[in-house]
This record gives sequence, C-alpha cells and structure tokens, in this order.
Amino acid sequence: EDVQGRTDPRRLAINKVGICDIRHPVSIAQRVGGHQSTVATFAMYVNLPHEFKGTHMSRFVEILNAHEQQITPDSFQLMLEEMAERLEANNGHIEMYFPYFVDKYAPVTGEKGVMDYEVGFIGDRVDGVSTLYVEVQVPVTTLCPCSKDISDYGAHNQRSLVTIRVRADAFFWAEELIDIAESEGSCELYGVLKRIDEKAVTERAYENPKFVEDVVRDIATRLNDDDRFRSYRVTSENFESIHNHSAYAMIEHDKDAE
Amino acid sequence: EDVQGRTDPRRLAINKVGICDIRHPVSIAQRVGGHQSTVATFAMYVNLPHEFKGTHMSRFVEILNAHEQQITPDSFQLMLEEMAERLEANNGHIEMYFPYFVDKYAPVTGEKGVMDYEVGFIGDRVDGVSTLYVEVQVPVTTLCPCSKDISDYGAHNQRSLVTIRVRADAFFWAEELIDIAESEGSCELYGVLKRIDEKAVTERAYENPKFVEDVVRDIATRLNDDDRFRSYRVTSENFESIHNHSAYAMIEHDKDAE
Amino acid sequence: EDVQGRTDPRRLAINKVGICDIRHPVSIAQRVGGHQSTVATFAMYVNLPHEFKGTHMSRFVEILNAHEQQITPDSFQLMLEEMAERLEANNGHIEMYFPYFVDKYAPVTGEKGVMDYEVGFIGDRVDGVSTLYVEVQVPVTTLCPCSKDISDYGAHNQRSLVTIRVRADAFFWAEELIDIAESEGSCELYGVLKRIDEKAVTERAYENPKFVEDVVRDIATRLNDDDRFRSYRVTSENFESIHNHSAYAMIEHDKDAE
Amino acid sequence: EDVQGRTDPRRLAINKVGICDIRHPVSIAQRVGGHQSTVATFAMYVNLPHEFKGTHMSRFVEILNAHEQQITPDSFQLMLEEMAERLEANNGHIEMYFPYFVDKYAPVTGEKGVMDYEVGFIGDRVDGVSTLYVEVQVPVTTLCPCSKDISDYGAHNQRSLVTIRVRADAFFWAEELIDIAESEGSCELYGVLKRIDEKAVTERAYENPKFVEDVVRDIATRLNDDDRFRSYRVTSENFESIHNHSAYAMIEHDKDAE
Repeated sequence: EDVQGRTDPRRLAINKVGICDIRHPVSIAQRVGGHQSTVATFAMYVNLPHEFKGTHMSRFVEILNAHEQQITPDSFQLMLEEMAERLEANNGHIEMYFPYFVDKYAPVTGEKGVMDYEVGFIGDRVDGVSTLYVEVQVPVTTLCPCSKDISDYGAHNQRSLVTIRVRADAFFWAEELIDIAESEGSCELYGVLKRIDEKAVTERAYENPKFVEDVVRDIATRLNDDDRFRSYRVTSENFESIHNHSAYAMIEHDKDAE
Repeated sequence: EDVQGRTDPRRLAINKVGICDIRHPVSIAQRVGGHQSTVATFAMYVNLPHEFKGTHMSRFVEILNAHEQQITPDSFQLMLEEMAERLEANNGHIEMYFPYFVDKYAPVTGEKGVMDYEVGFIGDRVDGVSTLYVEVQVPVTTLCPCSKDISDYGAHNQRSLVTIRVRADAFFWAEELIDIAESEGSCELYGVLKRIDEKAVTERAYENPKFVEDVVRDIATRLNDDDRFRSYRVTSENFESIHNHSAYAMIEHDKDAE
Repeated sequence: EDVQGRTDPRRLAINKVGICDIRHPVSIAQRVGGHQSTVATFAMYVNLPHEFKGTHMSRFVEILNAHEQQITPDSFQLMLEEMAERLEANNGHIEMYFPYFVDKYAPVTGEKGVMDYEVGFIGDRVDGVSTLYVEVQVPVTTLCPCSKDISDYGAHNQRSLVTIRVRADAFFWAEELIDIAESEGSCELYGVLKRIDEKAVTERAYENPKFVEDVVRDIATRLNDDDRFRSYRVTSENFESIHNHSAYAMIEHDKDAE
Repeated sequence: EDVQGRTDPRRLAINKVGICDIRHPVSIAQRVGGHQSTVATFAMYVNLPHEFKGTHMSRFVEILNAHEQQITPDSFQLMLEEMAERLEANNGHIEMYFPYFVDKYAPVTGEKGVMDYEVGFIGDRVDGVSTLYVEVQVPVTTLCPCSKDISDYGAHNQRSLVTIRVRADAFFWAEELIDIAESEGSCELYGVLKRIDEKAVTERAYENPKFVEDVVRDIATRLNDDDRFRSYRVTSENFESIHNHSAYAMIEHDKDAE
C-alpha cells in the first residue's frame, strides 16, 4: 500500500503539488516551417483534494517523457489535459521555458545571424477548462529621450529586456510577439552586424528615443489592435548604462474584463 | 522643460513604473532587541496616469537614500506612502529582500551558530490604502515517508526550501514565521553541530518523515490557528537527493475572502 | 578604414579578447550512436598583439554560425584552429557548456527515464598547439558516514554535485566520466523511480556512506588507473541537508608533471 | 572516536576541503574612515594529507563566527593563519565576496547618491606563506568607437563590468581600484543624476569612446605605473546594446615573474 494513497486527516486541500526545475529536450514548431530542437525547463503541478495524503510524483515525469517530441500550443494543451487525467485532478498547471532561436538578417548587408529569445508556454487548467499563456522575452535597444534632448551630442542607450505574456483566442506564432517587441524598441538587436549595419542601427536608435514607459505603451497599443490577444502583460526593464540599477515599466490589461 | 513631464497622447495608463535591482544597506529591527545591518535588493514602482509621458526616476533613489536606517514594518509603510506622495501617484509598490541572520544554538551541546534566511517586505498601495506582506524563506530538512516505509534501513532526505508569505492585521516578527517553518520540517538546519548534535538531528528527522505535502499542510494549520495572519501562501521545494529535479507543494488561503 | 585596425600606441598585448554569454544550438555525438540536439553557451577568445587597437568581434559569431552542426571533440578542435586562423592569432580559447541528456533505467524495474548533466568542452590553443579539456557536472547522492555511525537509525544524505575536468591523450566519451562519477557517490540519481526502485536506492546509499573527501578520492583513483586521462580536477559539493552551506572537496593532478 | 579521524588507506592527499556558499555578516574598514556593515559569502578550505580520512567541517564555521567583526586585509590574513593552524594544515584558502557601498556625488549638482560594488578578498596560504588578492567588480559605461566613427549621429553604449584582481606588497584601499576602473571607462555610473548631470555624463561618454580592449589596456597602464601592485588580472565585459551577447577582454600580468 502506498504511503501517498493514505487518507489525510488534516482537512486541507493543496493548491499545487508536483515537480519543478526539470530540464527536458523538446522540439518546437517554427513559423518558418519545421521544428527546432531546444531544451526546456518544466514545472508541472496539480491540485490535491484534502482527503489524500500525497500525489504520485513519478507520474509527472512519465507524462513528460511521453510528450517530448514536437510541441505546439495544441499538443501542450493535450499534455495538460493528460496530466490532470492521470493524476485524477480537477486543476493542473504546466510551465515550460526554453531558449528559442530565430535566423535574423543584418539590416543593410543582409548577413545572416541567429538571435536567441526565451519563450514560455504556461497552461492553467481549472475545473476542466484550460487556458494557455505564451510569453516571450526579447532584448531590444532603448535610447533615452531625456539624455538626447538635453545633450549637445550623444545619448545614453542600453540593452532592455521586453517581456510579453498573452492569452489569445486564436492561433498565433511566438514569432509574432517577438516581431512586435523588436519593432517597438529604439532599435532591435542582431547576431551579426558589419560596419555599415552598425551605422544603420546606431542612427536608427538615435532617431527613435524611447523611455521604458514608451516601449510598454507602444507594445500595448499593438496588442490592443489585434483582436486575437484577449489579455496581456508587457514589461520593459532597462539595464541602464548610466546607473547600476534598472528602469522598469509594466502595463497589464484583460480585454474580456472590460 | 522635462521630457518626462510632457503630455502623452496614447491614452494608456501604466500599472507600474520605477526602478528595480537596486541594492542598499539597511538596518532591520530584531525580535531579540536592537537592529541588525544587512543589504537589501529593492524594487520601487508607482502607477502613471495616461496623460503623463514619464515618471521621475531619480526621485525613487532619493526616497531610498532618505530611508536607509532602521527599517521596521511601520517605517516600511511610511516609505511606501512617501513614495506615492512624492511621485503624485495613487498606487505604489515596494519590495525589499535581504539576508537575515539569527543566532541559533545546537540542540544538545547548545553551541552557538548563525543561520541565514532570506526575508522580504512587500508593500502594495492601491488608491491610498497600503497592504503589507512579509515573506520568509527557510531551509529545512525533509525525510521521505515512502522511502522510510519501504526500506529495511535508511531513508532519503534533503534540504527543502520553505517559503511563507503572509498578510496580517496585527504585529508579528519575521522570526515567528521562521520558527513555524523550522518546527514543521522533518528537522531544522543549524550553523554549527557537534557529533552529539548531529546524532540528535539525524534521529529527529528519521522519527519525523514528511512529504512536501505534509510540510505545507502543517504550516497552513499553524497559520490558520493564529488570527493575526489574514492570508498566506506557503510553499515547500525539496531539492530531492534521489532525483535531479525538485518536488513542490503550495497552499494559499485568504481568511477574509471566506 | 576600420577603427579596430588602427595601430595602438600603448604597447600592451591583450591575453584574451572576444565574445561570451552567447547561446547557440548544437548537436553532440552520443556514445549510444547518433547525435543529440541541445543548446550551448559559448565563450570565444583570441590573444591580441600590442600593435593592434582592436579585434574583429563579428568574425567570432560567423565562425560559430558555420560550425553549429554535430560537434565532436575533433570538430571542436577544428573550430578552435579556424578561429585562431581567421583572427590571425597565435592563441585561442573556446568554452562551450551545454545540458546533455542520457537515457537511464531504474535499478529494479528498469523503467526508462532521462537524466540531464552539464557538460563542457574547453579548448586552449597556445602558440599553435591545442589542448582539449572535457568537463562533466554530475549530481549524485552522498550519505554522511559520521551521521550513520553515531545515530541509532537513519543518516543525513543530500544531493551533491560532482565535477570532473580531464585532459586526455586518447578518445573517450563524456559518458565514461559520468559513469565514474555516478558509481563513486553513495548512490546515483534517476529520472524515474517506482516504489521498489526507491527501496533499492535508499538502501544502497545507506550501505555506502561517503564524505565529500571519499567521493573525490574514489574518483581520483579511477582516473589514476586509466592511462588516457593525463590530468584531472575533481570536486564534490554537498548541498548539506543539516546545514545551510555546502561541504566541498577537490583533488587535482597532472600525471605528466610528475 | 571520530569517523573523520580514521586512517585513510587510499594514499591520496586532497588539495582543498572545507565549506562554501556560507553567508555571514561582516564589517569592512572604509577609506573614508569607520567601518561599513555588509554581508559576505565565504569559501574556506585547507589541504588534507593522505593519511586522514576527513577534515573537521564544524571548525571552519567556528573560525568564521569568531572573526565576524571589522575585517581588514590584515585581520583577514590572521583568519587565514588561524584556520590553517586549527585545522593542522599547511595550506589554506579563504574567499569572501561582499557588496560594498560608497557615497558618490553627481558630477554637476553634487547630489549625493550611493554606488554598490562587489568586492572580494582572496587569501592563499601555501606551506605557511600567505598571499592576499583583492578584487573589485565595477560597472562603467562604454561607448563604441567604431559606432561613433561611422555614424552621422549617436553611438551605441552600454553598461560594462570591469573586474580588477591584484596582489600587492604594500597597503592600498579597495576604493583605489574602484577609482581606477571608473576613471578608465567611457564614463562612470552614479546612483542619482539630475538633468544637468545626465547631460554631463552623456557628453563625457560621447567624447571618450572605448572598446573593451581600450578599457583593459588603460587600466593595466595605471596598474603598471603603481609599484605596490605586483600582479593583476583586469577584465571588461560589455553587455552590448546592439547584440544579445557580451564583448570581453582580459589582460593579466605578474611583475615579479618578468
């Protein structure tokens, strides 16, 4: 008889129980076609009713092993359903975060490079209803409008990390969120830049100064304009080049709660 | 004229804007009397109405500089209020996390050691009303009930990190939450243990096997029994000694939402 | 004319210059045959003679892009040579660290799971001569001999991280180093364990108590006995289950320096 | 009888054994006078001759507890000696890293802010002879000479982390190394900057473009010119604002090995 299966007398249900900090190889469907291989870090939880002493931890790993190939938003939701079923739970939660690589071409020479982004799929299942969130973390350049405005020449700029998390009611690619983030910084980042490309990105950033406040507002405007996206949370964190701390802004909005 | 002070045409309010990842020396009031010096990492945010282009980032740092000495839950709430006032904001948020040191005596020999815990004060101000959360992160030993039950001898055990975050309506010490966490693991950790102490903690853990589910339930029971604590979130994460991933459980509850 | 190509007047050679913290998809040859896809973090440096103002940073990325497929120790050394050549440097250094996954079967039921290890290839080229180091980071269980000896029952145990870095003069698989590390802990870790497996690993650890000192000595003995390994550095770090700090031991040895 | 004290038959000496990842409050002597309270993370090791099975882990913690107050380079070396003595070891090694805070005044308005730096004391004792290394990690601004040169306006810049580690044969303050690092970037960082200060730092950085290569060379020149510093290792890592990777350079030199 399993210790886990015993009756528990404390009359306290557990909101989430399961495993986390587990790495697994995965294969992700790409907008350009085909799949790319990468490595994801998972967290997998279910709820536990008050009458049970413990959950069955090894089943989580077994579900993960059975689903490692070719993950799409659809197959991710199937994994979430199967987890809830096999653990006999009403509620479930799966998070997977992974580096995601996209070929990117330098703006003038067109030289091919690779950019890496952190992408997350977050699935929540409550009373049998699943909700999927997709998150992208996108580094961009931000150039300070105030610094440009007051200085005779130059303007401080830096790498900023933009994070967008959305809930949608129609299909979209993570690459679409990456495109939005990259087009709304002062400039975007590249894997490879030749001299003439570096001139282009330097001048583009200078022509396009943005506070963290501007970045999150411009991205929110883009997400507001697209009906597929039903709720979002957008942050921008500047690793300031003139301070040893970060500047930060966040907008969140749920269109269906209006 | 400040660029930040200009009128913004996008009609989008910002939920949080400010600074983060900033370290500052602080002095924390202790249950044993006096204060201890440590180093905190802060995040400080306010909301920004839609009509303003930007916030005044340097004011956050000035507020931090003015408040570095002798932080208590009360003075922390004053800092939150002052921040909202000086930034002319309805809403504000301050988080500070710091290592906190407590003298601790070995269970048999009584030899004095020091334990370090991560403690957080989290203040939320919404429409002029402040709410304070206190968080403690407490390492404990957990010994697996299943492993003990099925094995002829021994039982796998490991360090587990317990996190308790509470909202209260009366004064309490962070040390009280640490005590609760330490008394509800299989055993507690110590800075210094002599041979005879090591025997005591080894046997205590073996006599007291607990799953992560047990740890969070036993802590939740303690918090339910204390009327000062109005809401809580308790997690336990086992850095499993037989797996390369963690086992995790979480209970959250708001007594005032019942 | 490139700024980097200008003559530098300071008469100071630079030991290492290049790029780091760059992630790239890679494919690694496996002992079981075939290749596995994973993600590596690279650092790539060359020396810079005193007369040049700067190096050509974009070339490092181009070399990385050209070599992403199917890395073996041999092809890794080719990348090191090509980097030195294209940067016109006498000395070069490449490090790549990546999660590496190995199928592993539970000790009694034989149920298949997956274990992840961190593996590194480190190449040093000095005056045209390349040296390759391979590093594996392997989590194991350690059970304290003192705790077992003095206690009436039980013994504290925990996850320990073993790191082995070797220089060899003949081919070997990273999996061979992983095998050595796993067989010299108190017990090894698994991805999936059923009840009867958990009994087996619990009892094996209890029968096989080891200090960090024992772990590094037993691994060093194994490496001393294999003539392919010419130098090594072995560490073991216990994430102690009874303390909030780690216990650590390290042995390093160069057979060719004897 | 202690298990650790038994005779070991493997005939393998251990280079380093002890504890690490242990945090402790410390008090550090300041150039401006007095001491500042902060929190250090320690590693403490000794060698272990082949004939002993294990070391006495609890003694390391006892030594740490006895020395927590008012650490100077001198008292740090005493702790190193005492550790070697109490553990009956010929060799010893102590590392302590801590955030260190220095008041800093904005360049035009003189407004007072605080900067935080990571500082390390590293002591090595070999056959009874102690050597002390001091390390500072100093964030600075770097502005790209190439980007400035080729662009009609603007220039990409970013936060860069400069690390200096030295061995000296006469007294110096860690603050002196911080001064050198800050004066050899394109510009230095500040805790608080008003508008007119931000103009000053923006223009100073633009007037003073530097590659990572320039930064390490200019710092090396300063260290070469000061006879107290006998050996050094200087690195600069740019968190590039136009790439998602870092640019890196390093110079190391031992004057006494010339």
